Amino acid sequence: MHQYIEKNKERFFEELFELLRIPSISSSSEHKQDMYKCADKLVQLLKEAGADKAQVYETDGHPVVFGEKIVDPKLPTVLIYGHYDVQPVDPIELWKSQPFEPEIRDGAIYARGANDDKGQTFMHIKAFEYIVKENKIRHNIKFIFEGEEEIGSPSLAKWAKEHKKMLACDIILVSDTTMISDKVPSINCGMRGLAYLEVKVTGPNKDLHSGHYGGAVTNPINALCTMIASLIDADGHVTVKGFYDDVVVLSRKDRAMLGKAPFDIKEYKEFLDINAVAGEKGYTTLERTGIRPCLDVNGIWGGFIGEGAKTVIPSTAHAKISMRLVPDQECGKIAKLFAKHFCSIAPKGVKVTVTEHHGGNGFLIPISSNAYKAASRAMHDVYGIEPVPSRGGGSIPILADMQNILKADPLLMGFGLERDTIHSPNESYLLSQFYKGMESIALFYKYF
Amino acid sequence: MHQYIEKNKERFFEELFELLRIPSISSSSEHKQDMYKCADKLVQLLKEAGADKAQVYETDGHPVVFGEKIVDPKLPTVLIYGHYDVQPVDPIELWKSQPFEPEIRDGAIYARGANDDKGQTFMHIKAFEYIVKENKIRHNIKFIFEGEEEIGSPSLAKWAKEHKKMLACDIILVSDTTMISDKVPSINCGMRGLAYLEVKVTGPNKDLHSGHYGGAVTNPINALCTMIASLIDADGHVTVKGFYDDVVVLSRKDRAMLGKAPFDIKEYKEFLDINAVAGEKGYTTLERTGIRPCLDVNGIWGGFIGEGAKTVIPSTAHAKISMRLVPDQECGKIAKLFAKHFCSIAPKGVKVTVTEHHGGNGFLIPISSNAYKAASRAMHDVYGIEPVPSRGGGSIPILADMQNILKADPLLMGFGLERDTIHSPNESYLLSQFYKGMESIALFYKYF
Repeated sequence: MHQYIEKNKERFFEELFELLRIPSISSSSEHKQDMYKCADKLVQLLKEAGADKAQVYETDGHPVVFGEKIVDPKLPTVLIYGHYDVQPVDPIELWKSQPFEPEIRDGAIYARGANDDKGQTFMHIKAFEYIVKENKIRHNIKFIFEGEEEIGSPSLAKWAKEHKKMLACDIILVSDTTMISDKVPSINCGMRGLAYLEVKVTGPNKDLHSGHYGGAVTNPINALCTMIASLIDADGHVTVKGFYDDVVVLSRKDRAMLGKAPFDIKEYKEFLDINAVAGEKGYTTLERTGIRPCLDVNGIWGGFIGEGAKTVIPSTAHAKISMRLVPDQECGKIAKLFAKHFCSIAPKGVKVTVTEHHGGNGFLIPISSNAYKAASRAMHDVYGIEPVPSRGGGSIPILADMQNILKADPLLMGFGLERDTIHSPNESYLLSQFYKGMESIALFYKYF
Repeated sequence: MHQYIEKNKERFFEELFELLRIPSISSSSEHKQDMYKCADKLVQLLKEAGADKAQVYETDGHPVVFGEKIVDPKLPTVLIYGHYDVQPVDPIELWKSQPFEPEIRDGAIYARGANDDKGQTFMHIKAFEYIVKENKIRHNIKFIFEGEEEIGSPSLAKWAKEHKKMLACDIILVSDTTMISDKVPSINCGMRGLAYLEVKVTGPNKDLHSGHYGGAVTNPINALCTMIASLIDADGHVTVKGFYDDVVVLSRKDRAMLGKAPFDIKEYKEFLDINAVAGEKGYTTLERTGIRPCLDVNGIWGGFIGEGAKTVIPSTAHAKISMRLVPDQECGKIAKLFAKHFCSIAPKGVKVTVTEHHGGNGFLIPISSNAYKAASRAMHDVYGIEPVPSRGGGSIPILADMQNILKADPLLMGFGLERDTIHSPNESYLLSQFYKGMESIALFYKYF
């Protein structure tokens, strides 16, 4: 596909940039129309690439795009999953260029969604275009692009159940993850699940003057901090009662296999500019993100946060807290355990409420499958070395559901890199990975 | 003065409301012009009330207003201190009427500054007007109104040193505090000091995807919470090393005297809608705010605080933390102890910076003084019972400085009530207190 890319890449950029310019932030209701704009654009791209049919479908939330080219019902069917929604752009002031005005600098595309997941989804459309145009197509190929991945795919599972026949496939192919580095290609053979909650601690029924009341009432911010501090113990264990009950403990052999992935702790620390890593005692950094669950505060707020000083004891304090889960932790069960635990540790003088955001389960992919082998061979051809099997720390909650509904395994060929800083300012996608990704996908069809 | 108030109160409201309509928020640079507008209005009011001279003086910050009426240099001189700046109005959505559009409802004036300190300052101008108009003036009376009290009076001490002669006085009379209740008048005979700091905890040099990194790096929000949680121990003691070294421990007798102030814990909890009070072990609620120091988080923020869920490990987390101090804790020393302690408890993987906001020392006022006795007698006449000596939990940092520069004691006749919720939404000032305050001040001049 190398030559095809060379010949067409200016057009590719034009098409991709048009997609990236649409601010399809799924979490923000003001962008509702942008979701449709983005979905329509994808339908157009699929049709131009060679799909027999492609259309926008309504769901209970943002629309999904489905397209397909059926060559012969007897041939194996590949279902491509991707998502066209993106994360919010805060803190906007840290972006070097506008998040929705893509630009190429230093060999990479910079924009919100450049990688996650518009850039990676786009590779699949172009690899498909190539095998159609060059008459190399030997599978039935289906596409499902959703607009709610970043908010936990609340509508897709229901929609997928209702359209089970249309989505029927042998493998779900996904590019929405990273590889270890551009020198060390890897294929994700598992992802973590997610439980995400929001907590509110209420003290006095009004904001108070900290002089008049300081020292005599429970300050909700101090209380929230104390409660959060107690959620992780000195050994890095989550203290929520029952949290580890269902965690699958990996065998020595499995841990050794995952330990083969090259990892440079010095480089890692330098990249993040931290003097030390941290986490659960007894596990390596890769294990801490790959095979172990964890708890993080994703946001916290309360009291006076403006410029200067205000002497207030606020009435409320808030936090967003999430847990990454591993098989067989069930996200709904964990959310309930957390809520119960968090309420139980409230000090006197405050009330606590816990509300649940989206969640999803983790999953594992058999590396003995034909699909995994085909992907591995394809990437070997492109990168010159055999990709390493790895476990991703992130979550694509909907994939566990899709696996369950369609009875087909997902395969995660991700071409993102850590340097892409998805979900953060200055999200990027390295051009070399963009090109190699398309080549790898085209070769996957050859070997599968 | 009762009849004078009855005859003139409509004009009083007009004049006060004009003052309250000016949004003189000292912490916000956009209100710079409003500070001058407010100062000019006060000059006008002082002149109209009978001051020989009144004018606006520049300082390094917001202007001060000085006015005086010298009857006879041999007579005792009373210096009235007040401030015309106000607190910010956040959270604005909780106000029932606009903060800078004063209105009277349910027997109280509602506006930002209605009490703190425009309303209380205004009483002094009107009591002065009364004794001038009625030819009852038997003291030299001076006024100093500043525009930076709510931001810690950074400029007044320097200015006061430069204008020491002009400010020379026998007593500094202040109405900027509360009394126990409108049934139990009290006079403040001490206030707490303040040390106010802002902390920043920096982890990785960029916001990270919490899936890719969760469990392997120190999350700055979790770290900040753990650090804050450790600042107060299970017995309610502040753990900052050296924090209690200079605290004056009160005698049994002094504690017994302060314990005479009536206090209803049930009413207190109901007013705040809390199921329990909290604080330092071994002390009562009034002691916790009156004679003991404390530590409170006044604001905290970090990560994603918008609607919905974002799976991020932020690069930084922030908090505003203040300590209320008692004699003889020195605010500069405490700020340094805090900064040193806070940096020393940072976990690995994060960097900490601490910056200092304004501070001030606490002070005590001798209740054996003539001025205290005159105030007590005046309030006895107006309220029908003898006022209780009390210790205020708040801080007017500049008063300790003024006491030091002018070698005159401050006397705190405050007419605010807890229900006024100063610094909070719906700040108010009860009309009955407004009237009784003016009467008490007029009588003070009679008895002093």
